[in-house]
Amino acid sequence: MQSADAKFKRNSLFLALRRYSSAVSEMEQTILLPSLLRDMPSDEVWDCEAAEETCKDLFSNYLMLKAIRTTVESGLIRLDDHKTLEPLLDTDPEALFHFHVRGLFSVMSDLTKKTQTLTEKYMDIIGIAN
Amino acid sequence: MQSADAKFKRNSLFLALRRYSSAVSEMEQTILLPSLLRDMPSDEVWDCEAAEETCKDLFSNYLMLKAIRTTVESGLIRLDDHKTLEPLLDTDPEALFHFHVRGLFSVMSDLTKKTQTLTEKYMDIIGIAN
Repeated sequence: MQSADAKFKRNSLFLALRRYSSAVSEMEQTILLPSLLRDMPSDEVWDCEAAEETCKDLFSNYLMLKAIRTTVESGLIRLDDHKTLEPLLDTDPEALFHFHVRGLFSVMSDLTKKTQTLTEKYMDIIGIAN
Repeated sequence: MQSADAKFKRNSLFLALRRYSSAVSEMEQTILLPSLLRDMPSDEVWDCEAAEETCKDLFSNYLMLKAIRTTVESGLIRLDDHKTLEPLLDTDPEALFHFHVRGLFSVMSDLTKKTQTLTEKYMDIIGIAN
């Protein structure tokens, strides 16, 4: 029973969202001078081939990770451009539901790791060893 | 401020998930004899061209809507087949995050409507007018 509970907790979407929020809070508490991130190349944190517009510098990554946290915490959805990336409208709704739940879980884990890497990178910049 | 709050609530993913749970609870409380749904064609509730395997009968729709509610409430994600529908791995993580949040919101609204339609259909079958 305990291992089923543990598995439940590991795979919970709500936990993944909370974990991301915590990582961003820790980033904010650590990065006291975000301006130090300006003009620092972001390719160690971000896959710059996939996301050119977010690859200006680590400072733009920092702002973006904070903006995503706001969306996570408010649950507020920008519906204005909701058709941009919707190639799956004809899919079975059950499959679509599982697809989006799994996708959100996976992207939250990815963003949590990126937030932690950015925080570590800042520590490197200011010369504090982890 | 009040209208901003109202907009916030309308667009909240967490509210959409809760609304779906409530619709399924109402369905369960209304449908006292789910077996009456066996062999009833599901094409009035479901788009059967998009979802052939869930289109056996209204009873299979009923079971499926309940199963999705369990996933919604537990937050438990089946990670076993997570690559089946993932054409977007190379997408910018910020865009991917918004895509999945919006997608989940949209599919939850769709499933909530389907749950309500199935409940009404049952009332028709047993001869109770809405």
